[in-house]
Amino acid sequence: MNIPARKIMQRIDVLLHISEDSDRLTRTFASPAMSRANDLVGGWMREAGMETHVDTIGNLIGVYAGEQPDGKILVLGSHLDTVRNAGRFDGPLGVILAIACVEQLHERKTRLPFAIQVVGFADEEGVRYQTAYLGSRALTGTFNLKDLNRRDVNGISMRDAIRAFGGNPTKLNTAALDPQRVIGYLETHIEQGPILEQKNLSVGVVTAIAGQTRARVSFVGCAGHAGTTPMNMRRDALCGAAEFVVAVETFAKSIPGLVATVGEINAMPGASNVIPAESRVSIDVRHAEDSIRHSACVELKAKAEEIGSRRNLQVQVETGHEAPAVACSEKLSALLSEAVKQRQNKLIQLPSGAGHDAAIMAEITPSAMLFVRCKEGISHDPRESADLQDVRVALDVVNDFIQMLAQQA
Amino acid sequence: MNIPARKIMQRIDVLLHISEDSDRLTRTFASPAMSRANDLVGGWMREAGMETHVDTIGNLIGVYAGEQPDGKILVLGSHLDTVRNAGRFDGPLGVILAIACVEQLHERKTRLPFAIQVVGFADEEGVRYQTAYLGSRALTGTFNLKDLNRRDVNGISMRDAIRAFGGNPTKLNTAALDPQRVIGYLETHIEQGPILEQKNLSVGVVTAIAGQTRARVSFVGCAGHAGTTPMNMRRDALCGAAEFVVAVETFAKSIPGLVATVGEINAMPGASNVIPAESRVSIDVRHAEDSIRHSACVELKAKAEEIGSRRNLQVQVETGHEAPAVACSEKLSALLSEAVKQRQNKLIQLPSGAGHDAAIMAEITPSAMLFVRCKEGISHDPRESADLQDVRVALDVVNDFIQMLAQQA
Repeated sequence: MNIPARKIMQRIDVLLHISEDSDRLTRTFASPAMSRANDLVGGWMREAGMETHVDTIGNLIGVYAGEQPDGKILVLGSHLDTVRNAGRFDGPLGVILAIACVEQLHERKTRLPFAIQVVGFADEEGVRYQTAYLGSRALTGTFNLKDLNRRDVNGISMRDAIRAFGGNPTKLNTAALDPQRVIGYLETHIEQGPILEQKNLSVGVVTAIAGQTRARVSFVGCAGHAGTTPMNMRRDALCGAAEFVVAVETFAKSIPGLVATVGEINAMPGASNVIPAESRVSIDVRHAEDSIRHSACVELKAKAEEIGSRRNLQVQVETGHEAPAVACSEKLSALLSEAVKQRQNKLIQLPSGAGHDAAIMAEITPSAMLFVRCKEGISHDPRESADLQDVRVALDVVNDFIQMLAQQA
Repeated sequence: MNIPARKIMQRIDVLLHISEDSDRLTRTFASPAMSRANDLVGGWMREAGMETHVDTIGNLIGVYAGEQPDGKILVLGSHLDTVRNAGRFDGPLGVILAIACVEQLHERKTRLPFAIQVVGFADEEGVRYQTAYLGSRALTGTFNLKDLNRRDVNGISMRDAIRAFGGNPTKLNTAALDPQRVIGYLETHIEQGPILEQKNLSVGVVTAIAGQTRARVSFVGCAGHAGTTPMNMRRDALCGAAEFVVAVETFAKSIPGLVATVGEINAMPGASNVIPAESRVSIDVRHAEDSIRHSACVELKAKAEEIGSRRNLQVQVETGHEAPAVACSEKLSALLSEAVKQRQNKLIQLPSGAGHDAAIMAEITPSAMLFVRCKEGISHDPRESADLQDVRVALDVVNDFIQMLAQQA
């Protein structure tokens, strides 16, 4: 019974070694390691009865033909690129599991009323060019051509990297799917969080991909000698920033589903015997509902300003990256939930705090996501781990989902 | 009336340009710049009727003979070395003002019942070898010979540096004063804090040099994805550290005279989308009474541990440098206070939060300090500034002090 799930795990283990670093897993956009990964995974696709090609940006595409040659298409997949020093499941699980689904159809010589297209996206993490979702942007026809001028740390432009990889930066539009033909997108991915583990469940259905606001908050006071400046005459920027860090945590805890994180902090000049004149913090705010995230950001800005005005510190809030929340398709999620209920006694629906290719795919087609439990919620780390039994449940759920969709078609 | 004070200011301005850096004031131990400073200041000492020499560690010594050849000695002075990118007053003021006092005796052809020895200490800041007070350690016979093996950033040992400077590292003991002959030490120094400015006073008498404890506190929790880890499942090390920073400030404010400063902080891994797994802070605690400082450190350690245990973070406190408080001589400070009352309507007595050569000199002789107001309390910065009128008051006070001491002798 476990053979297909075991095969998925074995293939993920093999992919772990397809890396541009010798001692850890790092596979970035348009790298030689990505090329080897596409070759390897492309071979597995063909074994599973698919025709394969690499599109102009470097996405690996495997097509399992449907009953009619020009019929509808169901897209399954995830990304094959990784962060630096990555875990093995983040991305590859969704691609390899999709191939296993197709393989079972192929073994049973089953054709569906729609073709299945399995995609191994070329870039989701954005490590090489600091811009994520290059693969899904090309596939959805929403690629920003300005990004072609970006350069990696070695000065290589994205344009040249795509060319060197065998793609064609002037023909990125040829990679775009025809939205009229696509009936939906399903992505299986490790949760990268601790909720499924806490609930002791193998899989969960994603309701929405949280929106995100990133900002930087700076507090400016006045430096001073740590020994000679009485406490009541200080304008200590770090004390203001520290009060803000605690306030961010307290506030986020008070709003269900909200997460807010200060991941970076500094104090300048940064000497143990000097009162900090300036302190900067990063803040990352996420919620599945944009209106809640927006009002949280307003409240947190007001809190920073209140701290600044009470402490006589200048406060500046600079909003950086903002991404709206993306709701998963109600129709596809309902089917997926049916399948989860069949395979796992309990249905859990949860938002995704992390971004995924599904958020981009949702711009052109109904999209859904299945989360798989991962150990201790650890991700982006070599300790990233998922259990064979959980992968088996996920495989069963996705197979059921495909069958139910085929019955509806 | 202002001519001697003006001359002090002019000489301090000249010394500003005796630097090892071309665009800022930096004068470290045994550097060519220190050699030029000793030459220049030694010339001013000789003009003021003193015999001069540079001792085996590099202190510049000027002796203005007393009535008897082997009589008692009053030591006046401060240091001629500076921090990097220093202000002009920290150190030189005390040396140049002492020379001006002697100059006035010399002009009036006055001999006192004691000799005056003006010292320009070779190292108080400890920039080059990360160990402060080399000059006063040699003068008090408390130099730690192990320090001779220390190396600067260029790999030059202190032993070689002293030799290259013209000193003799094997004969540092010859620099030591005979405590039997010394009746006391008086150091004039800018306050390096804002209290005199706040009270609108030119000078103040130092009661004690505060004791200091430096420590590092680390909080260790667990990294996690900023988007996928719910607030109530986090072990955010930075939130713990931030709570501690605020607690340090609140606690220090509650104890009169206590100062406690967090000047350094970090968060690791230090990415805006990762919950910090570890955060380290520095802490600097000072008070004029050691018992108060010690119990403050105990309370702050307990606070860090309480935060850690409540938040499920590991907490480690590592105590580094500790220096006991040094009380100024009651007798000399009483005389100095008399002089201050004569020259300034109001007497203010205040502790020094910063360390000074006087703290070392106090190990062998009664020591006192006069603080001079500095603008906005700024020090260790090119903006360091003291007012001509305040320097004039300080000069008058020290002259009066010397006269009163002579009358008592």
